[in-house]
Amino acid sequence: MGLFSSPAKVYKPAADVDLGAGSDEFYISPNVKAPRVAGLLVKIFVWILEMPIVGQIVLYMLKKDNLINKLVSDADIPEPPLFTATHSWEDIPEQNVTLTKPGLSAAERVQEAVGCLPARLESTLSSPGLKRWTIKDFYEAYSSGETTPVQVATRFLAAVKESSGPGMKNMAFFISCDPEDVMRQAQESTLRYQRGSPLSALDGVLVAVKDEIDCLPYPTTGGTRWLAAARPCEADAACVAQLRACGAILAGKANMHELGAGTSGINPHHGSTRNPYNASKIAGGSSSGSAAVVCAGLCPVALGVDGGGSVRMPAALCGVVGFKPTAGRLSNAGVLPLNWTVGMPGILAGTVEDALIAYSAIVDQSQPSYLRPELNLPQLKSTLSMNNIKLAKYAKWFNDSAEDIRSCCDKALQTLHAHYGWQTVDVTIPEIEEMRLAHYVTIGSECTTSLAKYLDNLKKSEIGWDARVALSVYGSFSSRAYLNAQRLRNRQMYFHKEIFKTADVIVSPMTGVTAYTLQDDTFDTGELDYINGAALVRYSISGNFLGLPAITVKVGYDNGGLPIGLQFIGRPWSEATLLHIAFAMQEACAKGYKKPEVFYDLLNKE
Amino acid sequence: MGLFSSPAKVYKPAADVDLGAGSDEFYISPNVKAPRVAGLLVKIFVWILEMPIVGQIVLYMLKKDNLINKLVSDADIPEPPLFTATHSWEDIPEQNVTLTKPGLSAAERVQEAVGCLPARLESTLSSPGLKRWTIKDFYEAYSSGETTPVQVATRFLAAVKESSGPGMKNMAFFISCDPEDVMRQAQESTLRYQRGSPLSALDGVLVAVKDEIDCLPYPTTGGTRWLAAARPCEADAACVAQLRACGAILAGKANMHELGAGTSGINPHHGSTRNPYNASKIAGGSSSGSAAVVCAGLCPVALGVDGGGSVRMPAALCGVVGFKPTAGRLSNAGVLPLNWTVGMPGILAGTVEDALIAYSAIVDQSQPSYLRPELNLPQLKSTLSMNNIKLAKYAKWFNDSAEDIRSCCDKALQTLHAHYGWQTVDVTIPEIEEMRLAHYVTIGSECTTSLAKYLDNLKKSEIGWDARVALSVYGSFSSRAYLNAQRLRNRQMYFHKEIFKTADVIVSPMTGVTAYTLQDDTFDTGELDYINGAALVRYSISGNFLGLPAITVKVGYDNGGLPIGLQFIGRPWSEATLLHIAFAMQEACAKGYKKPEVFYDLLNKE
Repeated sequence: MGLFSSPAKVYKPAADVDLGAGSDEFYISPNVKAPRVAGLLVKIFVWILEMPIVGQIVLYMLKKDNLINKLVSDADIPEPPLFTATHSWEDIPEQNVTLTKPGLSAAERVQEAVGCLPARLESTLSSPGLKRWTIKDFYEAYSSGETTPVQVATRFLAAVKESSGPGMKNMAFFISCDPEDVMRQAQESTLRYQRGSPLSALDGVLVAVKDEIDCLPYPTTGGTRWLAAARPCEADAACVAQLRACGAILAGKANMHELGAGTSGINPHHGSTRNPYNASKIAGGSSSGSAAVVCAGLCPVALGVDGGGSVRMPAALCGVVGFKPTAGRLSNAGVLPLNWTVGMPGILAGTVEDALIAYSAIVDQSQPSYLRPELNLPQLKSTLSMNNIKLAKYAKWFNDSAEDIRSCCDKALQTLHAHYGWQTVDVTIPEIEEMRLAHYVTIGSECTTSLAKYLDNLKKSEIGWDARVALSVYGSFSSRAYLNAQRLRNRQMYFHKEIFKTADVIVSPMTGVTAYTLQDDTFDTGELDYINGAALVRYSISGNFLGLPAITVKVGYDNGGLPIGLQFIGRPWSEATLLHIAFAMQEACAKGYKKPEVFYDLLNKE
Repeated sequence: MGLFSSPAKVYKPAADVDLGAGSDEFYISPNVKAPRVAGLLVKIFVWILEMPIVGQIVLYMLKKDNLINKLVSDADIPEPPLFTATHSWEDIPEQNVTLTKPGLSAAERVQEAVGCLPARLESTLSSPGLKRWTIKDFYEAYSSGETTPVQVATRFLAAVKESSGPGMKNMAFFISCDPEDVMRQAQESTLRYQRGSPLSALDGVLVAVKDEIDCLPYPTTGGTRWLAAARPCEADAACVAQLRACGAILAGKANMHELGAGTSGINPHHGSTRNPYNASKIAGGSSSGSAAVVCAGLCPVALGVDGGGSVRMPAALCGVVGFKPTAGRLSNAGVLPLNWTVGMPGILAGTVEDALIAYSAIVDQSQPSYLRPELNLPQLKSTLSMNNIKLAKYAKWFNDSAEDIRSCCDKALQTLHAHYGWQTVDVTIPEIEEMRLAHYVTIGSECTTSLAKYLDNLKKSEIGWDARVALSVYGSFSSRAYLNAQRLRNRQMYFHKEIFKTADVIVSPMTGVTAYTLQDDTFDTGELDYINGAALVRYSISGNFLGLPAITVKVGYDNGGLPIGLQFIGRPWSEATLLHIAFAMQEACAKGYKKPEVFYDLLNKE
């Protein structure tokens, strides 16, 4: 409108869009007109953006170049806004499901989940090259007296210390980790095992918590150096409290991208988390530390927060499982309110089985009446027992990734066809890039509004350079941009509901690129690399914008030995199906799993 | 933030705010720093606002002066946003209620409603000075053969013609009224009565429809001269279709404030509706024509749309009943989408009984599962049968009105105490002015976003001057302003739920001023009179922003003989209680009702 007009997109009614394989819907691969910028250039850019009026004009032109005005703010969209993706309960039949009784405690739900696991003598993922111990391994080692939580915690603290050394040795896993608090919890857990009364299978199991989630006795920094003082942490978040009630050892606050406002995990205040598969590479973000500690064997499970792929994307880059349930399944109480309608906690785990156990512990059954009181848990005892699973694939989107990723994910799909007889259904998911931009307007608007009370009184120098750029852009959106983003959200909800009439899950790569190099010029300023950023979040958005459950599983490695994740996106509330499918995928790939460069064997069985 | 900083309000948590009578919450009477402007000054103001950058800066400063930045955009608000006031069903016991069977047709529901009416030989409101005929009067006159729909329609068309004369005679009731279409409907209705098979008690009853609601064969102008061409009317709106199915004669498209973006009903394109009580005064807006035609006796019922008091406020100024049910009770299908979260159809009627009948006809029972399938209708047979009704009153707000209004409304309350033994409960409703501004940001943002696809391609000269000012302001809000407005909405929802624990309804004047003078300089440019505008909407906002049902009833006249309305605001879904209370109020006041200067007796019984 006015100043710099560009022809805005006119959308046709959602119901008129062809979602079939032969659709003529145009797939827009993100055409990000932005070179990677780091160092002094980032600082200059920030100074310009923060100038009155000039900054507004520059932002207007940048948004125009990046299609936000054309596809979102100024677009003609037939649908009214959809403000929050809360799904009313639909009782879609799922195969091989155990329904828990209503009103179970977290520990009781964990017991139900353990009962769903396959009985094996040895963990799936402990092949000769890789001792990736699971919750069950820890529980059995503690129960048999083979080791104790105190012994494991001691090894854990030594590993954290070792990996916090200078230079390439500084993995920057944690923002804070209090050895005394960890040892106190380990001692209490050890006593419980000695008395023969562990609280649950999670008792004595180390769980890292992203520093966006309240967890006593730690401050919650959100990856900043100022937020903890402005907003003291006064209690455990709801999901942390449930883990604590199960006896888990809260192992410290995992590193993250500042304010969750980036995908690299590069953090100028707390160090840039390195990828355990290759310490010269990023771990991905924003739940960088949570993904890396699980990858490195330090914790079988970690909590993250997923507002735009922030759990699943680093999980894929670090080769672990990343699981974001349906919006509403987990409580946001005690999670930094960096947004209101797209983010929620998520789980990073070494295996699908452990993701299931952690999920069953932290699920929130006090949610509104659109949830049923029973919890649907997958019976993982036979991977061959899921029949006629249909996987929706949008080829143009699926293939818009690096060649190694494309071929590896294709091979994984072939494996599913061959092992389980499942089918791929070709579909069209329209307006993928429009959805990414609409989600960006949404999370940006909500983040800057939520933080405004702090930011208005904060010295800009307290904030990292790349976060300052993000906040400048976030703060520049009009109410029209926000409302149009919610109209695109409504359209996407319609599209996805239609697609789920033809398939059980949507399948895609988890990221468009694998972990890229941490360059020397980024550690102080961070970097602006929107091209890699767009490739990293390419497949994440529907999980957040539409509140759909989604999970990533490692299906192989690129030529440089860096992990590749495949993603399954499910119907609302169909976590049991999703976990079952992910488990089947893991079973088919696990024999090829490789050990990360940086890895700690906390059960020390070698 | 930046440019023009002003100290923003820091809100305390909603649960910490004292809602009792002795609360120290500060009542802000709107301090609108804006002189009334009309004529050339309006045009100059528009030119400035529509300039690039300069307009943005002027708007920023104006919003600052009008507290929008301080109280909304930049404020520190503890609560997350509430996007739409949809109320989950709560089965609050109501007295003297008839529950209809599920699945009734519109005509069957009308029959149920008629069964709830008191049996009287003569209409309440046909006192010697005033023959205000009701739906039941028409139905009985048609059924007995005393007159026919054709005779009544003939008198109606003659009256419309007469009242469309030049100068003070141009009441500007309708934007369009097709005599042939009216007569065709009247003939069909007459035939049905001759065959002894009227469709319902509404058969042959004239109903005017605000020109914001689709009604064949008319275009829907929204009070503009361009919207009908940009958006052709292709079908009856859902509520119009239900009236048609009941046999009602759709009498034409009632005049309105352009785009509903004003409170005066001054319309440069279609004429400024005059108040039948005094043709030199405004009818109020935006449903100006709907209120005036009912007031003038042309239709016992009219449909309006209420997004910010637009039904209730002109109803009060014209001395008729204005009724806005709970958000979700009536369908918005076929209503111009001038906003998404605050507006809905409403009913203007000569009597509470007729409001009940029209309501029962147009209620939408295809709504989501938060509605129960039965409809709660009030048994109006005895006004003395409602016991222990508690009326919440916030004195500072109640008294922030012209002296005539205050004393008249106080007297009406005394009457309720004396006649029915009801009690007033003194409460504090915090942040009334904050709510008004937050609602303004909301409706403005939604209006400009919804209309953007038309406005972007429209010559500015097609739009009236005052609407151009409104659209400039509407288009200037940031996403932060919109989101903070939704946080204030969340707070208000909490406050009102708390207050409804102590009282059945909230009572207030309907407007802060009575109908003011239509000045000569306004007819071409409209006028900017934000002081009167703020006084007109002072009591309207919770009905829209919180989706609460609300109704206004005439309780007297000011010294100039202009009507004064009292408002009752109810709990969600408690329309039966609300209508019952309004009926009791009407019963206590009706003997004093006066005949408007411009009035037509369509049953011609004199």
